[in-house]
Amino acid sequence: MSLHAIQDYLHQHIPLSAAMEVAVLAADDQQVLLSAPLAPNINHRSTVFGGSASAVATLAAWTYLHLRLREAKVDGQLVIQRNTMNYQQPIYGEFTARATLVQPEKWDSFVRLLQRRGRARIRVETELEYNGEKAGHFTGEFVALANE
Amino acid sequence: MSLHAIQDYLHQHIPLSAAMEVAVLAADDQQVLLSAPLAPNINHRSTVFGGSASAVATLAAWTYLHLRLREAKVDGQLVIQRNTMNYQQPIYGEFTARATLVQPEKWDSFVRLLQRRGRARIRVETELEYNGEKAGHFTGEFVALANE
Repeated sequence: MSLHAIQDYLHQHIPLSAAMEVAVLAADDQQVLLSAPLAPNINHRSTVFGGSASAVATLAAWTYLHLRLREAKVDGQLVIQRNTMNYQQPIYGEFTARATLVQPEKWDSFVRLLQRRGRARIRVETELEYNGEKAGHFTGEFVALANE
Repeated sequence: MSLHAIQDYLHQHIPLSAAMEVAVLAADDQQVLLSAPLAPNINHRSTVFGGSASAVATLAAWTYLHLRLREAKVDGQLVIQRNTMNYQQPIYGEFTARATLVQPEKWDSFVRLLQRRGRARIRVETELEYNGEKAGHFTGEFVALANE
């Protein structure tokens, strides 16, 4: 899938991603990198609303897992169970969200478990950056369920 | 402020709240209760996108603190520092978000500290409900900073 096709998929199926004007800058085995501008995500202080920052971080994490499972040809659904979000700095403009696995070395056993038992758990973290500096950190726990 | 005026304020100053079609159902000393419909918050599985659920929970928590500080005539700004979100059940339609203080007995000392030292910390929790059942639980830590 091209970056453009991924972006279209997100905007069509998760309309909040279109409302937040999320763009897909990179998507590969290592990461998914999204960006979002200030205007649709602004708050009353003219910085990014925390709920937007967290939603873009969640979207990056989900997109990363979704694409990797698709590539691994595993037919399953992803459910987010829990996340934490640390807001490190106010964001005054366009920001990025880079999702990666917390423990990349566990990917293979995650896929094997999902295929054998129909259920497996994995953690994804997303770094938010604004103007070249860290602005927030998200960690999400997902469960993947194999479709029968 | 009437519920309608609060809703207008949110929609104008935090445009994501308009995109999510958030409505203000109640706002008093004890709680802020918001609702949001499925359509603008849907995901590819036809349930509420986790990022939307968390953003509505964050909005409820922020709105609660904002209104109470306003009522207490404390001129300050609120910064969210950290939050956790637990997703308990998939949400298939309109849902509500009810924000309350984690420790209501600490409100007075929070306001006193803010007035005396210009900085104070407080926690808010938000319960998400769908169809009469708990669907998610958010806890957020906020810092209030007095304007000089």
